[in-house]
Amino acid sequence: MSQQLQESLFQELEQLVLIDPHTHINPLSAASTTLADVMGYHYYTELAHSAGLPKDCIEGPGVSPKEKVGQVVTKLADLDNTIQVSWLLEICKEFFDFESDHITPDNWEALYDRAEQKMAQPDWEQQVLKQSKLEKVFLTNDFDDPLAGFDTNLYIPCLRTDDLVFKFAEKSVRERLGAATKVDVTNIDSLKEAIGVLFQHFKANGVRACAISLPPTFSPAEVSGEDVEKAVRRACKGKSLDDEQQRLLSQHIFWQIAEYCAVFELPFDLMIGVNRQVYPTGVYQGQDLFDMRVSLFQYRELFNAFPTVTFPVSVLGQTSNQELVSYAWIFPNVVTNGHWWYSNIPAYIEADTRSRLEAAPRSKQIGYYSDMYKLEFALPKFRMYRRVLARVLANEFVIARGWSETRALDLGRQVLRGNVERIFNV
Amino acid sequence: MSQQLQESLFQELEQLVLIDPHTHINPLSAASTTLADVMGYHYYTELAHSAGLPKDCIEGPGVSPKEKVGQVVTKLADLDNTIQVSWLLEICKEFFDFESDHITPDNWEALYDRAEQKMAQPDWEQQVLKQSKLEKVFLTNDFDDPLAGFDTNLYIPCLRTDDLVFKFAEKSVRERLGAATKVDVTNIDSLKEAIGVLFQHFKANGVRACAISLPPTFSPAEVSGEDVEKAVRRACKGKSLDDEQQRLLSQHIFWQIAEYCAVFELPFDLMIGVNRQVYPTGVYQGQDLFDMRVSLFQYRELFNAFPTVTFPVSVLGQTSNQELVSYAWIFPNVVTNGHWWYSNIPAYIEADTRSRLEAAPRSKQIGYYSDMYKLEFALPKFRMYRRVLARVLANEFVIARGWSETRALDLGRQVLRGNVERIFNV
Amino acid sequence: MSQQLQESLFQELEQLVLIDPHTHINPLSAASTTLADVMGYHYYTELAHSAGLPKDCIEGPGVSPKEKVGQVVTKLADLDNTIQVSWLLEICKEFFDFESDHITPDNWEALYDRAEQKMAQPDWEQQVLKQSKLEKVFLTNDFDDPLAGFDTNLYIPCLRTDDLVFKFAEKSVRERLGAATKVDVTNIDSLKEAIGVLFQHFKANGVRACAISLPPTFSPAEVSGEDVEKAVRRACKGKSLDDEQQRLLSQHIFWQIAEYCAVFELPFDLMIGVNRQVYPTGVYQGQDLFDMRVSLFQYRELFNAFPTVTFPVSVLGQTSNQELVSYAWIFPNVVTNGHWWYSNIPAYIEADTRSRLEAAPRSKQIGYYSDMYKLEFALPKFRMYRRVLARVLANEFVIARGWSETRALDLGRQVLRGNVERIFNV
Repeated sequence: MSQQLQESLFQELEQLVLIDPHTHINPLSAASTTLADVMGYHYYTELAHSAGLPKDCIEGPGVSPKEKVGQVVTKLADLDNTIQVSWLLEICKEFFDFESDHITPDNWEALYDRAEQKMAQPDWEQQVLKQSKLEKVFLTNDFDDPLAGFDTNLYIPCLRTDDLVFKFAEKSVRERLGAATKVDVTNIDSLKEAIGVLFQHFKANGVRACAISLPPTFSPAEVSGEDVEKAVRRACKGKSLDDEQQRLLSQHIFWQIAEYCAVFELPFDLMIGVNRQVYPTGVYQGQDLFDMRVSLFQYRELFNAFPTVTFPVSVLGQTSNQELVSYAWIFPNVVTNGHWWYSNIPAYIEADTRSRLEAAPRSKQIGYYSDMYKLEFALPKFRMYRRVLARVLANEFVIARGWSETRALDLGRQVLRGNVERIFNV
Repeated sequence: MSQQLQESLFQELEQLVLIDPHTHINPLSAASTTLADVMGYHYYTELAHSAGLPKDCIEGPGVSPKEKVGQVVTKLADLDNTIQVSWLLEICKEFFDFESDHITPDNWEALYDRAEQKMAQPDWEQQVLKQSKLEKVFLTNDFDDPLAGFDTNLYIPCLRTDDLVFKFAEKSVRERLGAATKVDVTNIDSLKEAIGVLFQHFKANGVRACAISLPPTFSPAEVSGEDVEKAVRRACKGKSLDDEQQRLLSQHIFWQIAEYCAVFELPFDLMIGVNRQVYPTGVYQGQDLFDMRVSLFQYRELFNAFPTVTFPVSVLGQTSNQELVSYAWIFPNVVTNGHWWYSNIPAYIEADTRSRLEAAPRSKQIGYYSDMYKLEFALPKFRMYRRVLARVLANEFVIARGWSETRALDLGRQVLRGNVERIFNV
Repeated sequence: MSQQLQESLFQELEQLVLIDPHTHINPLSAASTTLADVMGYHYYTELAHSAGLPKDCIEGPGVSPKEKVGQVVTKLADLDNTIQVSWLLEICKEFFDFESDHITPDNWEALYDRAEQKMAQPDWEQQVLKQSKLEKVFLTNDFDDPLAGFDTNLYIPCLRTDDLVFKFAEKSVRERLGAATKVDVTNIDSLKEAIGVLFQHFKANGVRACAISLPPTFSPAEVSGEDVEKAVRRACKGKSLDDEQQRLLSQHIFWQIAEYCAVFELPFDLMIGVNRQVYPTGVYQGQDLFDMRVSLFQYRELFNAFPTVTFPVSVLGQTSNQELVSYAWIFPNVVTNGHWWYSNIPAYIEADTRSRLEAAPRSKQIGYYSDMYKLEFALPKFRMYRRVLARVLANEFVIARGWSETRALDLGRQVLRGNVERIFNV
């Protein structure tokens, strides 16, 4: 009974047209042009490297896109158990008429060529959007992104603030800020002015959220006083900062951004828990990990200080999920947001989805985002989520609580789409 | 097969008459008098507030009970996915002949009036006890509770010690202690004497447990020396304490209470992990959260020092459950106790129940307590637990391990009732 | 459907002949000689003690093997829910023709005698190996084990290094090192020489891995300088070390061992997270617990420094499993290894197996080891794992992802056996 019911709910959820509330799409090159754009996704390069493929084979200076794919293919047999590779197969079957369950040294070249042909079609991007039932796609824009040359109604700007908060002491970041804002940043006041210019620019171009990823050690706090002013001035002059000064600088800028989120009425996506470059010699984007010893308790001052700012929160560690459920249950401005990265596998999605749906207001749950770099990934990733969601709705709502299928589907549609529209004011 | 088996086991477990080993019932007003007593439970006010209802609408000075219910009802559509609201619906259906699956702005007033009529019946309390199959109900009494005016065989006293351990430095607490004990507390010795008087009073009135809730930062330890004596003397005089002195004071009083638990042969319920007032502007009782970075390792000195005291332990974070299972598996005096607060949802109850039943002695598991403030909640909360317990027994014992239903039910009855009788000597 | 499929996959997995990659077998006395060898396993003594059996009844000076069994039997009714006792029943049914589901005060003596008869058969050890489908068994050898008197092709040496890393300051350990290596250890250089002699001795005798268990507070690091040299010299002279010196000493020796693992091309099994003697008056081997506040982030320097050393990692806390999955997903030299101790119950094995199979390369997963002290335990422990593995393969691969049974079984066989052969070069 459960099996049939899951399938029935899944088929209904598959009909829903989506807004993807968090991606890394480049709107000027949203779809893939070769299979290397798909298989060059860090999920495959890092897993192939983890399974023994030397980094040089993937990122060496003379490695062509096609060669890179050929190299990764040599390791796929060691990875075909992973859900990540199941996304790849689903892409190849859905978009490139691939019929095997395995991409092998014997069949990958034909697949590569077939994909290249299809991707060369002038409306490929539109085909992918349509077949994936994608109506709108959130971006993650650098703070100095001109936001020009694309339809911001389809590709919705989101202001990414990692560089400002954690890399302001780097000369290149300050130069980018100066170029983007024409403000000569020398102290707290001019820094505030410059960040305000960024917000105005983004607001004028339809921004719907601010976003940042945060290490497990970070604790937002309102800091002030001479030590903070000095840290900012030193950073502006390119002078070195000690750890304490860097902490104050990051806390100050973060708080400043939160204040602008209040002023400009923007949700502030917090992606909590990533340690950067834990494996510094790993492949591109395959170097970051985490430390589960982190708590949303570190964010209590922030959540209390900005009652009008909505914080869609993603946690990297599955062990943080219960805190997220509980903080969303108590704080009006905390919202659960998707299943991030190392937690984005069915085992964790299922456990986390169940607990969220059982304990937090249905209006405060953003079910899923793809986090994709290329459009082709929305289909298999959202499909994975829809399957898991259908399982939870079937087992825990229809069977265990006696809900009708209609009622369960309404809940599913709300977390998949309705809440995205309302929370981000799309 | 699993589905039918679960239902069959659930129906058998439903027949069991219970002793509820932990509640916040006021024995002088155990049952509700209006629906506001039910819907004023913090689970509904905090969830409604979390979903956007301003605190003023719930707790404003001029908000009548009926108005409060009307306000909360406006948000129920955003909350109907939660297991907490499913308890509310179950109460209304079981006790007030409510027939809809939704409490709405259109139907709540009739429900309110119908409930008020039923609650006005002179034997309402007895009706609820009988319909809920409740034989005895543990209380959580303030240390200065006179324990008078009620049947302590039905409503069993439990000495709550939070105020003594964490708020002794507050003048009002010391005054309450003085009034209750007639002891002039000025130092460690007179403090010991006063606490002894409390234990004698409770023991004379049928107390069956001591209880305390503890923040994640607390580590019990036997402390002594001039620093401790000074901290106690300063507190007794109303002088300010620094953090270190407060810590020593709390550790000293906690240890003193544990010693009395040994002398008076009382189990000491530890409810580990709550941070108070994380959201200080939240609604009443909707302000506390937690920090998962806590370990039972902090309690090793305590567990070793008091081998004759049984410690029924509740953990607030689900991530602490495996430690609880393991400490109960090793320490003879550690017992698993229910599913507390943010862990009291089916997703976590199921995972925790399974691991406990698979790894810790069956004689050392207290399956569930309601934690209720009003009697009407025992029925839906215990029913939720019985359903989950039936699922675990069906899937993991009858199906996976080939147990007979009879054998599985014996295990279920032991954790639901038998252990409560034995461990608390009821 | 799921139920039948699970059974079908389980029966196939049951056919597989195994190599057990981690045990505590004494190769000179691998099988049991009385039921006391089976029921004296700490799982039973500690659980019986936890359920109320005084330590004296188990370990008193005058307690004979048969009396010990009789004592533990008095508590089995309190423990029969546990998976640990299910292993015991399975042993008795499989090996000793026991037909009841309960070992009781009425039937245990006949069982004891029957077992003693069977164990007295000259080929008992071979019978157990054959019936358990065990082809090879890894040992855990003290560093000064002569490795003589047994077939190292059947019982494969593994160099256990706990004593060197954490107890080198103890005179007895240094004396054992001196006796085993004939090296006069007085400083870093001679210490290196001595450890090198150990590795040569083990390598000459077919060692296939190094192993160590580690407390949650330990962080491997390459340390050097006068402080380290001084700590080593003081330890060699038997002088006392302060905490900082002990830390440096342990870190230095650990790093030295890792370097030899690189030189001798040996995997280094890390068993992370155990606190020793948390319950010091508990029964033998029933005194250790853990603290979930630990992270693989503490091992990043190690994993980066030794790219050629494979680290099969076991974590004691289930809350560490996602980190393990993620570190194995990113670091080429990190491999998931079994389900250790407090995580070795179906509830946690199922969750952990699912996440590992969904996210980490299939070639980097060692499914299970028995951790046994006596041969009879491989059968029930591996059978428990095979059942859980069959469930995960059935539900998550065949049903949820449409895999054929054949394909799912190939994956199962790889994590059960294939990877053991390849990773440990057996």
